Amino acid sequence: MRENHAKRKMLAGQPAFGYTLQLGAPLVAEALANCGIDFILIDTQHGTFGPDTVIATLMALSCGRAVPMARVARNDYTLIGRLLDDGVLGIIVPLVHTREDARAVADACRFPPRGMRSWGWGRARVYGADYPEWIDEELFVGVQIESAQAVENAEAILSVPGIDGCWIGPGDLALSLGIDPRRAAGDERQERAIERVLEACRNTGKIAGYAAYSVEDALYRAQQGFRFVTAGSDIGFLVQGALRGVEQLGLTAQVGRGYGE
Amino acid sequence: MRENHAKRKMLAGQPAFGYTLQLGAPLVAEALANCGIDFILIDTQHGTFGPDTVIATLMALSCGRAVPMARVARNDYTLIGRLLDDGVLGIIVPLVHTREDARAVADACRFPPRGMRSWGWGRARVYGADYPEWIDEELFVGVQIESAQAVENAEAILSVPGIDGCWIGPGDLALSLGIDPRRAAGDERQERAIERVLEACRNTGKIAGYAAYSVEDALYRAQQGFRFVTAGSDIGFLVQGALRGVEQLGLTAQVGRGYGE
Amino acid sequence: MRENHAKRKMLAGQPAFGYTLQLGAPLVAEALANCGIDFILIDTQHGTFGPDTVIATLMALSCGRAVPMARVARNDYTLIGRLLDDGVLGIIVPLVHTREDARAVADACRFPPRGMRSWGWGRARVYGADYPEWIDEELFVGVQIESAQAVENAEAILSVPGIDGCWIGPGDLALSLGIDPRRAAGDERQERAIERVLEACRNTGKIAGYAAYSVEDALYRAQQGFRFVTAGSDIGFLVQGALRGVEQLGLTAQVGRGYGE
Amino acid sequence: MRENHAKRKMLAGQPAFGYTLQLGAPLVAEALANCGIDFILIDTQHGTFGPDTVIATLMALSCGRAVPMARVARNDYTLIGRLLDDGVLGIIVPLVHTREDARAVADACRFPPRGMRSWGWGRARVYGADYPEWIDEELFVGVQIESAQAVENAEAILSVPGIDGCWIGPGDLALSLGIDPRRAAGDERQERAIERVLEACRNTGKIAGYAAYSVEDALYRAQQGFRFVTAGSDIGFLVQGALRGVEQLGLTAQVGRGYGE
Amino acid sequence: MRENHAKRKMLAGQPAFGYTLQLGAPLVAEALANCGIDFILIDTQHGTFGPDTVIATLMALSCGRAVPMARVARNDYTLIGRLLDDGVLGIIVPLVHTREDARAVADACRFPPRGMRSWGWGRARVYGADYPEWIDEELFVGVQIESAQAVENAEAILSVPGIDGCWIGPGDLALSLGIDPRRAAGDERQERAIERVLEACRNTGKIAGYAAYSVEDALYRAQQGFRFVTAGSDIGFLVQGALRGVEQLGLTAQVGRGYGE
Amino acid sequence: MRENHAKRKMLAGQPAFGYTLQLGAPLVAEALANCGIDFILIDTQHGTFGPDTVIATLMALSCGRAVPMARVARNDYTLIGRLLDDGVLGIIVPLVHTREDARAVADACRFPPRGMRSWGWGRARVYGADYPEWIDEELFVGVQIESAQAVENAEAILSVPGIDGCWIGPGDLALSLGIDPRRAAGDERQERAIERVLEACRNTGKIAGYAAYSVEDALYRAQQGFRFVTAGSDIGFLVQGALRGVEQLGLTAQVGRGYGE
Ligand SMILES: [Mg+2]
Ligand SMILES: [Mg+2]
Ligand SMILES: [Mg+2]
Ligand SMILES: [Mg+2]
Ligand SMILES: [Mg+2]
Ligand SMILES: [Mg+2]
Repeated sequence: MRENHAKRKMLAGQPAFGYTLQLGAPLVAEALANCGIDFILIDTQHGTFGPDTVIATLMALSCGRAVPMARVARNDYTLIGRLLDDGVLGIIVPLVHTREDARAVADACRFPPRGMRSWGWGRARVYGADYPEWIDEELFVGVQIESAQAVENAEAILSVPGIDGCWIGPGDLALSLGIDPRRAAGDERQERAIERVLEACRNTGKIAGYAAYSVEDALYRAQQGFRFVTAGSDIGFLVQGALRGVEQLGLTAQVGRGYGE
Repeated sequence: MRENHAKRKMLAGQPAFGYTLQLGAPLVAEALANCGIDFILIDTQHGTFGPDTVIATLMALSCGRAVPMARVARNDYTLIGRLLDDGVLGIIVPLVHTREDARAVADACRFPPRGMRSWGWGRARVYGADYPEWIDEELFVGVQIESAQAVENAEAILSVPGIDGCWIGPGDLALSLGIDPRRAAGDERQERAIERVLEACRNTGKIAGYAAYSVEDALYRAQQGFRFVTAGSDIGFLVQGALRGVEQLGLTAQVGRGYGE
Repeated sequence: MRENHAKRKMLAGQPAFGYTLQLGAPLVAEALANCGIDFILIDTQHGTFGPDTVIATLMALSCGRAVPMARVARNDYTLIGRLLDDGVLGIIVPLVHTREDARAVADACRFPPRGMRSWGWGRARVYGADYPEWIDEELFVGVQIESAQAVENAEAILSVPGIDGCWIGPGDLALSLGIDPRRAAGDERQERAIERVLEACRNTGKIAGYAAYSVEDALYRAQQGFRFVTAGSDIGFLVQGALRGVEQLGLTAQVGRGYGE
Repeated sequence: MRENHAKRKMLAGQPAFGYTLQLGAPLVAEALANCGIDFILIDTQHGTFGPDTVIATLMALSCGRAVPMARVARNDYTLIGRLLDDGVLGIIVPLVHTREDARAVADACRFPPRGMRSWGWGRARVYGADYPEWIDEELFVGVQIESAQAVENAEAILSVPGIDGCWIGPGDLALSLGIDPRRAAGDERQERAIERVLEACRNTGKIAGYAAYSVEDALYRAQQGFRFVTAGSDIGFLVQGALRGVEQLGLTAQVGRGYGE
Repeated sequence: MRENHAKRKMLAGQPAFGYTLQLGAPLVAEALANCGIDFILIDTQHGTFGPDTVIATLMALSCGRAVPMARVARNDYTLIGRLLDDGVLGIIVPLVHTREDARAVADACRFPPRGMRSWGWGRARVYGADYPEWIDEELFVGVQIESAQAVENAEAILSVPGIDGCWIGPGDLALSLGIDPRRAAGDERQERAIERVLEACRNTGKIAGYAAYSVEDALYRAQQGFRFVTAGSDIGFLVQGALRGVEQLGLTAQVGRGYGE
Repeated sequence: MRENHAKRKMLAGQPAFGYTLQLGAPLVAEALANCGIDFILIDTQHGTFGPDTVIATLMALSCGRAVPMARVARNDYTLIGRLLDDGVLGIIVPLVHTREDARAVADACRFPPRGMRSWGWGRARVYGADYPEWIDEELFVGVQIESAQAVENAEAILSVPGIDGCWIGPGDLALSLGIDPRRAAGDERQERAIERVLEACRNTGKIAGYAAYSVEDALYRAQQGFRFVTAGSDIGFLVQGALRGVEQLGLTAQVGRGYGE
């Protein structure tokens, strides 16, 4: 059995922190797998990953202490199934707006009779023959609450059996609330929506999650009560380090196209 | 014509700073290509690159302001030729100990009558039909001086026509001097050797280079007179950022296997 | 024209035997392509394949005597179209429960006026300019009957024009019948459902198929009347051979994670 | 900001010509990126591309003058989002039959409030931090009108805000009209349908597009009023050149399987 | 047994024509494999191929009528062995200047007692268990005569047992003769050297080969007596077709970087 | 520290058994990594591996109990260094004929002052910061004794410090002795040579190794005194399983090209 220690931690009331992978690069994944972070989230919605690279990245993560998770590109039975078969131990589903959406997530993630996951798994065989016995227990299933409608439906969504928690996407949430995502931090409407989701988690006994984009923000959200908290990304560490260096070296960050702006 | 602005800068007496790529990941390369650094050095000696990934990485770098360079795996006519044909505008050759070694480097890098490079180039066709007319001028050719013997021969090595400069490898140099590379910084024997190479560059009018592993060290070496100075690496930015985050988050960096130690 | 000799065999009343590919490995595919088996089935539902590897695998199979087929990840017009364009000569669609599902399969597989396949094909051009004239004839289209509902609807499903046969998925079928897939063999409810599908095939003149997981089981199912029968897989041959060796060598199969359990 | 000069050209009333990529080959893309053509269209519907190769191909195109565009495999929110996040500056959606279909396209392509595109983008970060401010302006969004139903609905489809124009797919259109695509050229019914789409573009002020398969046809269609015109493909140039050579050399094009027929 | 029909043709006194692959693209290789050309030459010296792509390209070629051959990057026992093990049926070795060089080629290519090839072959197993019995017969081994020294030694080189013929490299030959390769055509010194090699082939009964870069040149060289003649390349067909189209479309081939110049 | 338990076992006088990888397929490697075998040997001499696939395969093996080793393509300082940097814990060098050859192996494998390995390692950083302190101890270095000359020099070769043992290559050995490798089993000359190597190992206190191609042969050789014994391969398990199935199914193994012969 492969224990999902990040899930255990969260169930015990502690925050689990994660880093996201945006760059389709197995060696990057391997380099982060044992840095001490609780989980690593492969982003197949907005990150630059094709399915073949996802497979290679999961192989690269398999030796690490960080629990391998993925954000699926959409709420889709088959895409979720592929990631589970490939060996993720946590799955995040974006753009879940209603209880029906959440039920579809749970169905896709759990074997019958709890859900409708199809029998058969590929790379997940590395976990051993008892995989179907423990995967439903160890798997972390989180839905993204990131629209006004979803905030409205938060309790209905979170109370669906098989859903372990949520992960607030502040960017899409802001857009849905009519706020520019780049100026959402501290916006009262945004914060009120975030609070409501947090409360829905408390009321349903589910794990609250938040996509922070900096370590500081992550710590703040953890104090606020969030338990599934991302705190940085591969591209972030890379570019921030490179830009800090460029500045210290007295060079000018590139004007024009590119990450350097 | 594709101008090698890093080389121009160095020839004008200014330092050019670079980052090295250790992770075989084209998306990492693309993310750094426009960060403002002067050149990017693909490390095919010690970095985790296969030849197919080198090609993809050069494509990823081609839009960037950073001049694409590579360290070849060894002083070898064919390996050097492959990298040139793939489109590098700078080449660093490790473990050059003698004037004969340096001559072999120059021969491999330059078309006849200046050298013995074979006629024909693959991906370098992206530079246009006039490529053979300007490549010898724009290409930066550096040799690694990283042994007691090479230090001894520094002027003989550097005065070889077609060699533009050097790049001191402090790790191998330390080993060659009987110093533990992890304790070489500030060792008097090490610093004396470094000074001798710097002087040989001055005497021969060639560009002095140094493989610094931090921005601070890079700045120090630039002040010392070095002009071709690496100041960081993809793996460094990535792991340092991740570890700093882990620490701030109050997690324990992984004990046991891995980058996290 | 590329003749689908496996389909011819089945239409002539003989069983065609196949191996499935679970490992995304073109060289594995090439090694099996000429072993004497009638067809090879790339499993893109549960196998560890990304789309780029599917393309490479189809290239690897193209020289073989084994007819290249694939199981699509789901009953989806576009995914089916991609596999056809990539050059498969047989397609298996999982989780077909109703006549409407089967009609969607047929529509996706056949060019107008028989279906709604879009005009244009990529790698399938290797089959020559007359491809659109014979592909509908040579292509084998099988649906997976693997739920209680599908068993109920078997004749309605199979009688859809453009569907050539079925492939029973015993794992999902068992789950649907409330049976643990690992204990389904010989279960009376399971066997009765299998018999009903077989009878529906007889009544509609379509080809009955069965996903056997061993050669012995495959032979038994062929005697029972099945014609499209898988009898092993790449991962199966590999791991069984390795484990048999380990045992003979007196080593202990790994306790803990992995295929070895 | 990255200007889409092909779109500007079309908005100024001039034709923009493009080549399509069918072969999943980044080096092919790079070789064409600066040939002088206005745009390059990666075909992920019928071309032989997996998602990982699409990413590599977009990197290969990023230095070129040709605007990088893609045909998505189907009218799907997530697939469209993936291509946008990967950095395309134009997107073509096949099989758009109704105004509702077109609305779904526009929603997938534009950020709120204009559409429903999700916030976050991967490789598109190479375009700089201001990407969300100009992408809706620079992006070219075209729908394929390629069925009798779509011709009927052409004005309703084209007048949807966020749709910039169309690209007639003559193959599927012919099939839909009951014409063999290989004999559609000059068929009166086909030409009448094409004229109706052209008129709908005029009436709605949108850009008319046509998938020509030769340079001659492209020029003819441009004269007819089409502005978004593909005029050749990688596989076409390659195979035509090879076959012309074979003929001149006095060899016999291969009888049997293959492109050579 | 896999017959090398290109070699048979040449031994029968007829010219065999080939195309070279410069672009590391398996799908390009597959598209050309059955165009009717006699052989296809993967260029691992100057072409943009990494070893992993060479393997994939050989798989793509394996179904074609064109005999799969490769130019090795240098005269090296191990690199030659790798290509043979990967399944080539012809090998071209660049920069062979002396009889000793030629002996090394023959040794690397032939199993003992004729040579020193190591026992064991990977992908070449696709040719069947009798591979070691016929490979020495079917393999075509050609050396590149492309220097003044090699022209001088032509008979000594060609008379080495195990060498089947040569392939003149006009670019490097010109450089060696002090001629600009771009102006070598028709240069008297160049033509005289070519004639001497042709004569050496006649005197030793070996096959004369020439790297023509156009079909016209290839036909001329065949008339002159050359039997192993390349007549075009993937990049050539692609770019020539694209540029011709651009011109016909009235566009301007890109000024600045790129293949379009 | 990563302990090389296979080496410990051998040093304790017990045989360690291994499987070789011939197919460049990371998923195959992962499937075997925990089957219970002591070590896995990536064959980069005769196996179908490019360097990029070697890196991916080492990532796939990193979680397994089997110690990851590789056969380098030739006795070459740089190729050996690349594999060490990529993370192998054992290295086998083919075609070592003399004491000088063996010294070059040891020099390439060990850091100064014991050898001349260059300072810096890429993927091997996953082993942690103390890697340079224990790698010389844990690394297994074996030379292939596979020629009459090497048998003659066996004691001189094996007594070189830094060489841990040998691995007899029966195929090349047979060729060198004038025996057809396919009929070498039981040949007296062959067996006598094998005995001499075994004795040289005893005399020098080094580990004797043998490349058996079946489990039975491996057990026999272990009884004979060999300690580093390969007993099967990925391609062997795969093809043997497939052919056995074909036979049981009553099909005919393919006549003509391919593995099935
Ligand atoms: Mg979101
Ligand atoms: Mg060094
Ligand atoms: Mg199933
Ligand atoms: Mg169409
Ligand atoms: Mg040449
Ligand atoms: Mg050997």
